[in-house]
Amino acid sequence: MATIIDNSRNAKIAETGQPRVVIVGGGFAGLELVKALRGTELQVILIDKQNFHTFQPLLYQVGTAAVEADSIIYPFRKIFDEQQNFYFRLAEVQSVDTVNQMVETSIGLLRYDYLVIATGATTNFYGDEVIQKNAISIKNIQDALALRNTILSNFEKALQIDDDEQLNSLMDYVIVGGGPTGVELAGALSELRKHVFPRDYKELDFIKMDIHLIQSGDLLLKGMSAEASQKAREYLESFGVKILFNRKVKAYDGYTVTLDNGDTLITRTLIWAAGVTGAPIAGLRKESLLRGNRLQTDEYNRITGYQNIFAIGDIAAIVTPDHPEGHPMLAQPAMQQGKLLGENLKRLIKNQPLHPFHYHDKGAMATIGRNQAVADLKIFKKEIKTQGFVAWFIWAFIHLISIIGFRNRLFVLVNWIGSYFTYDKGIRLILGKPKENIPVEAVTEKAVG
Amino acid sequence: MATIIDNSRNAKIAETGQPRVVIVGGGFAGLELVKALRGTELQVILIDKQNFHTFQPLLYQVGTAAVEADSIIYPFRKIFDEQQNFYFRLAEVQSVDTVNQMVETSIGLLRYDYLVIATGATTNFYGDEVIQKNAISIKNIQDALALRNTILSNFEKALQIDDDEQLNSLMDYVIVGGGPTGVELAGALSELRKHVFPRDYKELDFIKMDIHLIQSGDLLLKGMSAEASQKAREYLESFGVKILFNRKVKAYDGYTVTLDNGDTLITRTLIWAAGVTGAPIAGLRKESLLRGNRLQTDEYNRITGYQNIFAIGDIAAIVTPDHPEGHPMLAQPAMQQGKLLGENLKRLIKNQPLHPFHYHDKGAMATIGRNQAVADLKIFKKEIKTQGFVAWFIWAFIHLISIIGFRNRLFVLVNWIGSYFTYDKGIRLILGKPKENIPVEAVTEKAVG
Repeated sequence: MATIIDNSRNAKIAETGQPRVVIVGGGFAGLELVKALRGTELQVILIDKQNFHTFQPLLYQVGTAAVEADSIIYPFRKIFDEQQNFYFRLAEVQSVDTVNQMVETSIGLLRYDYLVIATGATTNFYGDEVIQKNAISIKNIQDALALRNTILSNFEKALQIDDDEQLNSLMDYVIVGGGPTGVELAGALSELRKHVFPRDYKELDFIKMDIHLIQSGDLLLKGMSAEASQKAREYLESFGVKILFNRKVKAYDGYTVTLDNGDTLITRTLIWAAGVTGAPIAGLRKESLLRGNRLQTDEYNRITGYQNIFAIGDIAAIVTPDHPEGHPMLAQPAMQQGKLLGENLKRLIKNQPLHPFHYHDKGAMATIGRNQAVADLKIFKKEIKTQGFVAWFIWAFIHLISIIGFRNRLFVLVNWIGSYFTYDKGIRLILGKPKENIPVEAVTEKAVG
Repeated sequence: MATIIDNSRNAKIAETGQPRVVIVGGGFAGLELVKALRGTELQVILIDKQNFHTFQPLLYQVGTAAVEADSIIYPFRKIFDEQQNFYFRLAEVQSVDTVNQMVETSIGLLRYDYLVIATGATTNFYGDEVIQKNAISIKNIQDALALRNTILSNFEKALQIDDDEQLNSLMDYVIVGGGPTGVELAGALSELRKHVFPRDYKELDFIKMDIHLIQSGDLLLKGMSAEASQKAREYLESFGVKILFNRKVKAYDGYTVTLDNGDTLITRTLIWAAGVTGAPIAGLRKESLLRGNRLQTDEYNRITGYQNIFAIGDIAAIVTPDHPEGHPMLAQPAMQQGKLLGENLKRLIKNQPLHPFHYHDKGAMATIGRNQAVADLKIFKKEIKTQGFVAWFIWAFIHLISIIGFRNRLFVLVNWIGSYFTYDKGIRLILGKPKENIPVEAVTEKAVG
């Protein structure tokens, strides 16, 4: 990369004379890092495409009208408005110039002493651009709102349809991927089908609404215990979710889903929760990029080949014998890495030896519906597997206390308590655009002609 | 209008054999009407462009990050999900065919026995399309969110600007119209300038942020008492709002505001709160349309010239000697007309005599900031004028109890209590698009070249 030092193109952040750490991405990892650097001698600059942090584990609840978007996102400037060494910029990072220690961003060039890549992961469509165009994914708040708008718009449109196949295309849902997101979405949609939509759309027959969950392997919640996997399956099947195991989606044109065995399903709404891939930045050495687009780091989260560039969270893979492909792409390792890197950067500027990363696995959880969740917990190195009400209560408690901000926590709690007692999900607002899909007329003509 | 009876174009709402009332618009008036028709022998069909009711008096608080959008809007289907004779359709009404008693909508034709126009009012730009394109108005929730996104984006952009005029164009605000909306917005922006933005944007100097309020006459809050008007002025001036009386905006190109005396102001954000005009429907007789695009009705809200077509709320003008131009375009007359028309429709189908409309004026209120409001109340025909904390408390109480839904009421209350004690306004989220304005580069070039 050419040497670019053009002052007019500088992003306008005054040098404070302190060593400068630039953090790209304010997810769980980036946020913990900023927190850990409070009151240090470092100038901390956070760059993100949005002006808020997103509590990703509840995105599916925004998508299914259970909580409002504003309750699971929180402005960065508000989180850190008492942190004097903190600077935020709303920008996209285009590339890194590692020779000149510069980041190229949408608002200009930014010098760094330490650079931290915390850009997280993005939905993996495995290169299929047609599916990518037609499916809905659920990795950010805009996705979640688009899903909510789409679901509600579908039923509004369905009221105008006589043709059976057309009606089913609007009322049926296909979810691809039997991990936590897929399972939680299938559960939430089932609850809406059972308790909410029949009240809203009295003229529609909800026996016609199918929810398909497609899983490439023969287990749900791969990575969790056999008990959790089995119980999740039982819960979903008791809700009437049709789970297709050992099936993959070969094609989806926005209307017809073609499976790998040639079977087809009709739906206008295919939710893609079949995997994620790292979201790396241009300008870093190719050799550090592993399978799944994760950046290989040493046990101090330093990207291999660099002394002052780090990666944390989903984008980082600390390759060890225990974790040959890096740690799981989850909130816990991300937060732990962010926190540790904060401590290590403090050590670095004091020339103290760094501490290596050790993952404290606290277990995994997924919720399917009211009183129905599965949890594999690790407490004091003891494994506790639980399902049902206890797991559901623990899930709710852990998620609640993890949400940022008293107001957000309270609002989510109020929504949950309300839903628990009324079986209702109140945020049934079409606010913003649904996913654009093929007009009903177009498909009718196709079918007729 | 040609006779159109084409079954394939029918909006699919089954006839129930009951007389059918079609209500266009679910604002305050439409909502009260639907409520009043609960349990009657009528088939009640509500048509609206949005699937939710909007509590318009708090739109300015959404625009200034004080409450979230989802707390002041509420899905129609949820409000009325226990009302068996209620049907909702998400659609736009294009015209009325009064001969065949049909409404032409975006989802097809709809037969009616009784038709109620409750389409409300829209922002009045007095025919100036350039101002309309460049200004922000605040009549619906999308407007309010666009305002919030614009304000926050302005400051994010301002951080990158050295040029003084450019910086001011992003930091300064011009509000046109000294009615309740203009006054409340000016107050809310002042509070943000004083308590919130300096914490968020430490690098900006908020002495540079000007808030101009432009009023065509020589009084704020025209229609309220002299005391209210004077006190509102004092409050705003103590906040540093620059009020220009007896001034009109002649032109606004998105950057330069030109006043009627030739003076100019520079701002990228001009908020237009200078008046509203009725939003009528095509196909009704021209003679019934009065100045301000309101539909003239008799004292039973029947549009002049029709027996079975009614107008209620802002769009309706019941012309009487006391109200030669109709009642004020406010929530109170709208709600009272909606309720009365509900009772009258019940009387109509029972062949009972109708009751005429009598406006119960409960007074008017506006809030400027914490503990600062003005209220002219009419209680048991007694006029009570109050300003300051008492007025503010009454304002807050009345608005809270008027919001639909326990959850929404609670969330607004929590936001207000939070803001009261912390001086903060928490919903500082850029979610969705800001109003597009001229790129900073373009203006810089213009200024230079």
